[in-house]
Amino acid sequence: MSKTTNYTLGLDYGTASVRALIVRCEDGESLSEATIPYPSGDDGVILDGHQPDLARQSPSDYLSCLSLAVQQAIQDAKENDAGFSPMGIVGIGVDTTGSTPLPIDEQGNSLTEHEALKDHVGAQAWLWKDHTAAAEAQEITQRASEQEPAYLEKCGGAYSSEWFWSKLLKLAREHPEVMEKTYDWVELCDWIPAILTGCDKHPVRSKCAAGHKGLYHDAWGGFPSRAFLDSLHPSLAILRDRIAKGPVQVIDQPAGKLNAPWAERLGLRQGIPVATGALDAHMGAVGSGIKPGVMVKIMGTSTCDIVVAPLADALPYVPGLCGMASESVLPGCHGLEAGQSAVGDLFHWWTASVLGGSGHSHASLTQQAQELKPGQSGLLALDWNHGNRSLLCDPKLSGLILGQTLHTRPHEIYRALIEATAFGARMITDQLHRHGVVIESILACGGLAEKNPMLMQIYADVLNKPVSCSASEQTCALGSAIAGSVVAGVHPDIASAQQAMIRQNRTTFVPCPDSAQVYSSLFELYRRLHDAFGKESTGGGDGLGRLMKELNQLRQQAVIARL
Amino acid sequence: MSKTTNYTLGLDYGTASVRALIVRCEDGESLSEATIPYPSGDDGVILDGHQPDLARQSPSDYLSCLSLAVQQAIQDAKENDAGFSPMGIVGIGVDTTGSTPLPIDEQGNSLTEHEALKDHVGAQAWLWKDHTAAAEAQEITQRASEQEPAYLEKCGGAYSSEWFWSKLLKLAREHPEVMEKTYDWVELCDWIPAILTGCDKHPVRSKCAAGHKGLYHDAWGGFPSRAFLDSLHPSLAILRDRIAKGPVQVIDQPAGKLNAPWAERLGLRQGIPVATGALDAHMGAVGSGIKPGVMVKIMGTSTCDIVVAPLADALPYVPGLCGMASESVLPGCHGLEAGQSAVGDLFHWWTASVLGGSGHSHASLTQQAQELKPGQSGLLALDWNHGNRSLLCDPKLSGLILGQTLHTRPHEIYRALIEATAFGARMITDQLHRHGVVIESILACGGLAEKNPMLMQIYADVLNKPVSCSASEQTCALGSAIAGSVVAGVHPDIASAQQAMIRQNRTTFVPCPDSAQVYSSLFELYRRLHDAFGKESTGGGDGLGRLMKELNQLRQQAVIARL
Repeated sequence: MSKTTNYTLGLDYGTASVRALIVRCEDGESLSEATIPYPSGDDGVILDGHQPDLARQSPSDYLSCLSLAVQQAIQDAKENDAGFSPMGIVGIGVDTTGSTPLPIDEQGNSLTEHEALKDHVGAQAWLWKDHTAAAEAQEITQRASEQEPAYLEKCGGAYSSEWFWSKLLKLAREHPEVMEKTYDWVELCDWIPAILTGCDKHPVRSKCAAGHKGLYHDAWGGFPSRAFLDSLHPSLAILRDRIAKGPVQVIDQPAGKLNAPWAERLGLRQGIPVATGALDAHMGAVGSGIKPGVMVKIMGTSTCDIVVAPLADALPYVPGLCGMASESVLPGCHGLEAGQSAVGDLFHWWTASVLGGSGHSHASLTQQAQELKPGQSGLLALDWNHGNRSLLCDPKLSGLILGQTLHTRPHEIYRALIEATAFGARMITDQLHRHGVVIESILACGGLAEKNPMLMQIYADVLNKPVSCSASEQTCALGSAIAGSVVAGVHPDIASAQQAMIRQNRTTFVPCPDSAQVYSSLFELYRRLHDAFGKESTGGGDGLGRLMKELNQLRQQAVIARL
Repeated sequence: MSKTTNYTLGLDYGTASVRALIVRCEDGESLSEATIPYPSGDDGVILDGHQPDLARQSPSDYLSCLSLAVQQAIQDAKENDAGFSPMGIVGIGVDTTGSTPLPIDEQGNSLTEHEALKDHVGAQAWLWKDHTAAAEAQEITQRASEQEPAYLEKCGGAYSSEWFWSKLLKLAREHPEVMEKTYDWVELCDWIPAILTGCDKHPVRSKCAAGHKGLYHDAWGGFPSRAFLDSLHPSLAILRDRIAKGPVQVIDQPAGKLNAPWAERLGLRQGIPVATGALDAHMGAVGSGIKPGVMVKIMGTSTCDIVVAPLADALPYVPGLCGMASESVLPGCHGLEAGQSAVGDLFHWWTASVLGGSGHSHASLTQQAQELKPGQSGLLALDWNHGNRSLLCDPKLSGLILGQTLHTRPHEIYRALIEATAFGARMITDQLHRHGVVIESILACGGLAEKNPMLMQIYADVLNKPVSCSASEQTCALGSAIAGSVVAGVHPDIASAQQAMIRQNRTTFVPCPDSAQVYSSLFELYRRLHDAFGKESTGGGDGLGRLMKELNQLRQQAVIARL
């Protein structure tokens, strides 16, 4: 008599599409994977020619594409495995981009379902990369820095225009007619589980989004105080009360059970559990195999670093990290997030924006650059072309390259830029180490990790730790599927589910002792440059700590003078 | 009855050819100009595949090409002006590259005229850019820095491998068989007048070459002491006695009169005066119109700055200048020389070595760069890709560019590099000003000055002084012709000759007040970077003052590790 085979469904909402992944709970084998692009806007993003900072998405896209993706995945799974039945799917997990909040009504539906607001730009979902709330973010930063408790200590010292409260404040200020109809304001990763489970008035909030984007922290008893939010705008205080009513949960806890209408719409069994949602990067860390001692680096145009540390250990404040929240990644662990603003973007800048048309490519530059020994180019760079996210949390910093001679060639600068991002990564691992967070190895995922072995080796040598590439290309959806398998009870906890469901056939880059030694000397020089140009206080002797800002001011004056 | 027309002959020995210029003394009108390339070696330079630092020239080329150039110039002058007769040439002036010394025998002839040494590499002229005496230069620097008087104070703190005594020490060490036959060691600019005038045993020395290349200075009574030279090598002490026997003169003093054999060979009048020679850059300054208050900038691959100040003013020590000598440029004036190691070379590095193949050219980059306002790129660079000659006198420094974003484009960096060289130039003019040397305007000559009006405007704005381009393309030969006219008595002094013979139709770039103001702010930032990275003492707080050296050491270790 054959054992029942259980499957789990991982839903991953990206910036341009939603992906549905069906995997076998037993061993993580993927049966099918379907991706449906959002039909609205420009590659799924609603833009406004007059406001380049605006980026919204259609909530109805999220729901229509969800149906299509799941139906497609089920059909593919059946074709791939004749024994498969959608009735074997026992749980669902969800991750999304974030902070991508949207306004909802008392029934939990998007305000765009109201005819009057259907096409209203304020009633859509405010995509993570929407920067229209820059002034509001500054205002929140300013107010938060003047008061106790120090809300910003857990999010890198400045509140971002990309985040939950900035966007809500902007909505309240700019679109009172939308705000008036807004009963609640919810992160996409919390809204999708709420929709699937029909938990009416007060959606479950994820500790992940609340902690990293919503200033939620146990240290001050949850979300920011009513008084603080009221000082920003009275509507925020009103919404705060509603937001705080729902439970705040972790991914191994169900948000609820799949309700009848959605079970029918998707062709799944009614009543199966839907896990509490999470942000995509964090779920990606779960799907990569994060655990205490292992840093997950999601390496693409920028880099997001995620580490966890046991809750049992009191977590000291780690200055410069852009997110510290409890149970935001794994239950029972602190979740910590750091980031580098430009990584792939930096190499692309050099290859395309500077060398464009010269016949160089990433491949040709890599081929030449890998012939170089560490230190051989005599170059050193700061990886700040798009500012510094961690540890300096300063978007106004800029790039630097030094050591050029009249013989310096393009591939040498290419390698120096790669090394600079590795040194920037080392600043982060050193800072974590200094504050008691153990990192024994690195798990890299994302486009860069898969494409460039030279880069991986440089990272291993600079960080002086083994760096492995994740075996799965769909780590976010796999993480969601893992959460789904746990809430379904197939695996007792996330760690067991990871053990069972994540493939271990990783490529590992081990530090080369000679290279590590040279890089350790170069890193000391990088650190000196970093502190001189990045810290206004320590760079003060030579006045270099303000130099990039002053240059930026002169640039802005020149731009204004031109107008 | 028509007034007699006087002509003067300017001889200019360059790196690849000798040029003869016949000009009318009355108004500087050029009748003809003939250039004869040296036939030996590679473009006139004798190289050695095994010693890339070696660069010699054949003394017999100098003489054979001289005859051809003068004969050609005479013939052309006759064709251009039927009234011209070579008998109207009343004086000769000479400038040459330098330090380009050669060993001569007791009769003043090159040792290559001795059959045994004809092709001996040590018996040739040691061209200015011969760097084989690097170890000897270090030794001289070391010894000179340990003793009084401080010989190096007048030449920028380090004795160069390109200079007179380094090369002689190398000759003594490496080729004793040549040294044994060497009666005297003479700069090319002193040898040519000696040859033309037949002044047998002790050639007249020019204050120009002696002062800038031979450690000659009134402060210590002429050439370095016998004891100092003896400590380097006994032969140097012996030669010092012979060298010191000849008079040391200025360009308005004749080295002698054209002797019969050479008068016949050249087709000129016997007995006409030949002026004391000078280095080409200095004679170029004369031909450009140098006088107190006017800096001449010779702008090419590198830049040479020349200023003069009245001898009546006690000249303070100007730290960082690479040459300070009395009457080295103009009689009655101190001559001061500064330099920037890479100017045109820096722009060429960016355009060819980095952007090569991308379709960019100096013209296209300039066209885009001139659309930018000062400060608009947000970039700042240090112009040290080939080290820093003045004021830091440090060849081990390297380049730096900062302020890059992900939007930075190639023409912005091109402009930033041009601005960096202008800021480097400003460091020099500020230093001179600080030490009491007046500079009211700049006279630019050389390839860059003629080719790039945007660059000239940036220099005018950064230096905040009018910058004019020299009207003549042959300023060196014209300077020699001016000296020839003065020793012939046609003009009473150099200043009068300059007034009469230099064309005044110059293009002048006047500072734009708005740009000058922005550049003054940017220059303050440049100065901070300069001091932080260039001065080991002041950069010490952040340890940046040694950073480029440490990087260079790591580079050398990497190169060694590869071997």
